Amino acid sequence: MTIRWLGGTHAVEETLRAKPKAARELWVEHEVNTPQIKAIIAAARAAGVKIQFMARRELDRAVRGGRHQGVAVKVEEAAGYELPEFLDGLEEEQKKGMVLVALDQIQDPHNLGAIARSAVNLGARGLILPERRSAPVTAVAVQASAGAIQKVPVFHVVNLAQALERCKKAGFWIYGADMGGKPSWETSFNRPLVLVIGSEGSGLRPLVRSSCDEVVSIPQSEQAVESFNASCAATALLYEIARQARTDDR
Amino acid sequence: MTIRWLGGTHAVEETLRAKPKAARELWVEHEVNTPQIKAIIAAARAAGVKIQFMARRELDRAVRGGRHQGVAVKVEEAAGYELPEFLDGLEEEQKKGMVLVALDQIQDPHNLGAIARSAVNLGARGLILPERRSAPVTAVAVQASAGAIQKVPVFHVVNLAQALERCKKAGFWIYGADMGGKPSWETSFNRPLVLVIGSEGSGLRPLVRSSCDEVVSIPQSEQAVESFNASCAATALLYEIARQARTDDR
Repeated sequence: MTIRWLGGTHAVEETLRAKPKAARELWVEHEVNTPQIKAIIAAARAAGVKIQFMARRELDRAVRGGRHQGVAVKVEEAAGYELPEFLDGLEEEQKKGMVLVALDQIQDPHNLGAIARSAVNLGARGLILPERRSAPVTAVAVQASAGAIQKVPVFHVVNLAQALERCKKAGFWIYGADMGGKPSWETSFNRPLVLVIGSEGSGLRPLVRSSCDEVVSIPQSEQAVESFNASCAATALLYEIARQARTDDR
Repeated sequence: MTIRWLGGTHAVEETLRAKPKAARELWVEHEVNTPQIKAIIAAARAAGVKIQFMARRELDRAVRGGRHQGVAVKVEEAAGYELPEFLDGLEEEQKKGMVLVALDQIQDPHNLGAIARSAVNLGARGLILPERRSAPVTAVAVQASAGAIQKVPVFHVVNLAQALERCKKAGFWIYGADMGGKPSWETSFNRPLVLVIGSEGSGLRPLVRSSCDEVVSIPQSEQAVESFNASCAATALLYEIARQARTDDR
């Protein structure tokens, strides 16, 4: 079991809504009494979650300096299941058009959160993160994701290149996002796929890049500066993938 | 004339490349001696820019706590020209397919920077920012934009709704990005346009929303959480606009 604290109205509401059984305890700051907090307290009460009121500094400590807006929830979950187990459990029918997102050493928790948020909003079904040199799934990341990161399975893998090979064997096509690839709007994404996003500074590592079946790029204007913010690049590509799937273009 | 300090290799390189005449002075940290810094020094020398070497804390002070990576440049520029002047100066031919981006109270400088970066990379020709309750164009924003924010005119306006009316009169169509609008991939963006992005917390203000000719939304999956990060939403919509323009779809 892993135990963690999540702060902020978004993350708490989402936890109480999506997995009330994982919520072990709700902490609320004494002085905070907004309608939103009242609704959260009512939801926690309805779900039978223990509620405690306390000083702001206790909440600060629980979320380790992250924002909490006067409310935090203690979450206790079974350790996430593993990627091979997930892939093996998929039926062919489920795989159709399934999108997974792999992040190659994204180290900024705000970027991680923003990517998770876009991924969930645009229909992705899982996140793959290397264990080393990745932003951990902290309260900051959960908050930046507006709770989205709790709605998809997150697979922590030791070796990303090997994990991608595993996905290929399961029938997924691996698209790496990087400079110098095929223009995204000329690429057909009509298959089960993993979209791999490189790190903020240096893009995809060579070994990861060579594990990709195809490298795709967002076409840039002639006035362009070097690349996009990682979460923005991920969003544009996930948008293109969703657009093609839902408009039958390509 | 406005004077400001920009820190970081990206921002400094871009300044020396794009507007060497605006660069008044280059400050370099004593101990920093990477090939990139050497190239920056050479570029500054070639442009006739005064170079000074000094302690890290002096640079810290110049960029007011922003990141500088051992290098900063002092930029002196004529105050930006105004939106009406810009609009009046456009020929009909130039307006064809022209994209401007207006930000309704985006307060996070990282979001401002990331939006500017995506806007420039996807071909937008100007940014419109209300003077009040917007993130100022600081070194943090310039850095987050990878220098992009220095490549487009930035118009600071007192009243955003009035500025949008002014753009309408000049022949621009105003698209507001918000929930409950027309799906972006069913919307035709084939005209001179202003894309209006709402604030991180609360979206478009009612008066701004009512100034829009059309409200557009990024279609979301059924598992979606509340909205996107503002810079991610802006990127997806600017991507759609660029895609339609460059593939003749719609």
